Amino acid sequence: MSALLEAPAASPFPSTAPHTAALFARADAVIPGGIYGHVSPAAAVPLAGPYYAARAEGARYWDVDGRSFIDFMCAYGPIVLGYRHPEVEAAVDEQRARGDAFNHPTERSVELAERLVALIDFADWAVMAKNGGDMTTWAIRVAREHTKRPKILKIKGAYHGVDPWCAQSPGGVIASDVAHVHDFPWNDPQAFLDLTRQHAGQVAGVIVTPYHHPVFADQAEPDPTFVATLNEACQREGIVLIVDDIRSGFRLDVHGSHGRFGWQPDLACYCKALGNGYPVSATVGTSALRVAASKVFLTGSYWNGAAGLTAALKTLEILERDDVPAQLEQTGRRLCEGLQTLGKKHSIPLKASGPGCAPFVRVANETHFRRQQAWTVRAMQPGADNLAAFFHPHHNWFVCAAHTNAEIDCALAIADRALAEVAQR
Amino acid sequence: MSALLEAPAASPFPSTAPHTAALFARADAVIPGGIYGHVSPAAAVPLAGPYYAARAEGARYWDVDGRSFIDFMCAYGPIVLGYRHPEVEAAVDEQRARGDAFNHPTERSVELAERLVALIDFADWAVMAKNGGDMTTWAIRVAREHTKRPKILKIKGAYHGVDPWCAQSPGGVIASDVAHVHDFPWNDPQAFLDLTRQHAGQVAGVIVTPYHHPVFADQAEPDPTFVATLNEACQREGIVLIVDDIRSGFRLDVHGSHGRFGWQPDLACYCKALGNGYPVSATVGTSALRVAASKVFLTGSYWNGAAGLTAALKTLEILERDDVPAQLEQTGRRLCEGLQTLGKKHSIPLKASGPGCAPFVRVANETHFRRQQAWTVRAMQPGADNLAAFFHPHHNWFVCAAHTNAEIDCALAIADRALAEVAQR
Repeated sequence: MSALLEAPAASPFPSTAPHTAALFARADAVIPGGIYGHVSPAAAVPLAGPYYAARAEGARYWDVDGRSFIDFMCAYGPIVLGYRHPEVEAAVDEQRARGDAFNHPTERSVELAERLVALIDFADWAVMAKNGGDMTTWAIRVAREHTKRPKILKIKGAYHGVDPWCAQSPGGVIASDVAHVHDFPWNDPQAFLDLTRQHAGQVAGVIVTPYHHPVFADQAEPDPTFVATLNEACQREGIVLIVDDIRSGFRLDVHGSHGRFGWQPDLACYCKALGNGYPVSATVGTSALRVAASKVFLTGSYWNGAAGLTAALKTLEILERDDVPAQLEQTGRRLCEGLQTLGKKHSIPLKASGPGCAPFVRVANETHFRRQQAWTVRAMQPGADNLAAFFHPHHNWFVCAAHTNAEIDCALAIADRALAEVAQR
Repeated sequence: MSALLEAPAASPFPSTAPHTAALFARADAVIPGGIYGHVSPAAAVPLAGPYYAARAEGARYWDVDGRSFIDFMCAYGPIVLGYRHPEVEAAVDEQRARGDAFNHPTERSVELAERLVALIDFADWAVMAKNGGDMTTWAIRVAREHTKRPKILKIKGAYHGVDPWCAQSPGGVIASDVAHVHDFPWNDPQAFLDLTRQHAGQVAGVIVTPYHHPVFADQAEPDPTFVATLNEACQREGIVLIVDDIRSGFRLDVHGSHGRFGWQPDLACYCKALGNGYPVSATVGTSALRVAASKVFLTGSYWNGAAGLTAALKTLEILERDDVPAQLEQTGRRLCEGLQTLGKKHSIPLKASGPGCAPFVRVANETHFRRQQAWTVRAMQPGADNLAAFFHPHHNWFVCAAHTNAEIDCALAIADRALAEVAQR
């Protein structure tokens, strides 16, 4: 009898997931922890959830055990039009027929820079890379180069990638990596002003997300006084204001998210929705920072790769043409209102925060996330129709243009079933 | 009359390059410096060389002005089988039909880790990312986490990416970024031992390339005593030995380059040839480092992207099946010997160094690189047949499996023409 059929009672894998169990056993032998990073079971996917994707289309994906999920993570943000969007795939195919990685940039690099400068009000120039962290780390260096000052201020609990200066876990970080990085709480203008006074003349830049999107906690818009204080102090003190718009840039607003909240950035970083799943990221800046930007050497083996830039050009075109951000806001509201109605029905009150395009939903009045984890994990278990939904238990969700009303209603039916079971326990 | 036809005499663009001139003018308006990084005119491409690629196939590419180049940079290393290799493209197409970026890894992640562990003698595990610098920066953090020591030793003039700890230009780097990074000269075992004594008990790791490949200078193999000293000292002192095999890993030897020179690494980093142009990089390590590796949070939006991992699996399969590294060595030798014969003919002595798969060729007996730049730039100018060759003036070159003997002979004819013209001046 095979080991899979003889899986021990303690196995985290449901009996419907033999391929998942076998693949994870193989992975555990050759990859530290089996799965690393934000998609690891420890960091994100609950033990009984899907571990390995097999294919995806529109707003759905299938795992290696053939289980089907209506997806509310969208690959953790990159998928904004839907998986395998035909127009984006066709544009990438057309570019790939000519090539992707070359000795030089292509016309696509120039076109994308022009497009970003046209879309984003304060932008005079743009550069492109592959990953969000490539750009946030480069942006703080541009701020340091421009000001010839060392200090970077950032929001406590904000995610800007995993580079040493901003890593949220201490592994491999030494004291000098963070000696000149200082945190202050979201929506606390006084704490920010105190830091600028404490380090007067030493602050190169401050990096903020347009709204606050921590894990395990509600999302929060900035208070107008918070935004005004940072805008004014940065201008007055010559501090570079960096908006990290990687999470929801172009998903919330095709002109970038900063304007929705009144931020007046000097630099803004984008990734995620920019390429509908193709690896591409970007930073835009003001003309005052152009010289400093040209002095911070920026390069990577594939950063001029034409396929990713083509995907970005086509994605931006569709986002603007179809006013996708407005559609996503409606879709997210339909989802959140539907869930809150179901929560009342089952006496499990649900709280939604943040924008419709990237909402955070949790069981209200609990800080341990137990019932939240229970109902979202239950929703990951396929019903008799073999259909489930992937609602992340403690990270904000993402909706995409492929989430039709019918898909949302189907997901709500799955949530209804899951909440009912949790309520009955 | 258009501005292009009226290009000023001082324009760096030859009259055959109106599209290049127009595109660079557009770029200069929206990108700091117009082109950034290792492919910028300042860093790499001489003023009269090609600036923008339009398409590529096999060992050739075409620029936006329709000029055709036999290519000896291979996108600065990633192209090892030839541009648009049909088997790699087909494998990627098949994977893309199922999807690329997902909420989870795919079976491809596990397969590639298994493949790397099988190919590389000392490897017990593997992880994947997108860029070479993603991996070198992560590797030094794993060394610091494992040893709980801060110091990193590295070779003077070696390239490990552009992150602050190893940046070769000072833009945006502050003193604390490099406070615990110390350089020593290549092939100087005593300098290494001196540093380990000076920082006794504080050295986390040493990072070396398998052979030395600086810019503007000849490549150099390691002396056996240099390798033995580092191997032994690392084992004795518990220092993590990191081999940065990004430049020629899998191109020189499908089992990694370290064994060719006797290195006994704890960690090795790969990129470039791994994916034949698709963005993918990897680090492998010993079992002793598995726990530390699992503690240094490693993630990026697209790092589990299945298309790049599929490209890597297919590329490794072909490299091994066809013994491509042996073919590349022969190809490179044919090229270098042919060039040296031409150098004698024209009394411009050429010196070749490094492996055949990635040779460095320069005019001997000159340190200013003037004649070297002259003949390589001349070779970039198409002849009556509209054919030119892209020989980089001061960076090592790369050959790929699409460089047939006929292509090499054609490139030698172009070089003959260029060297003759330079000799006549």
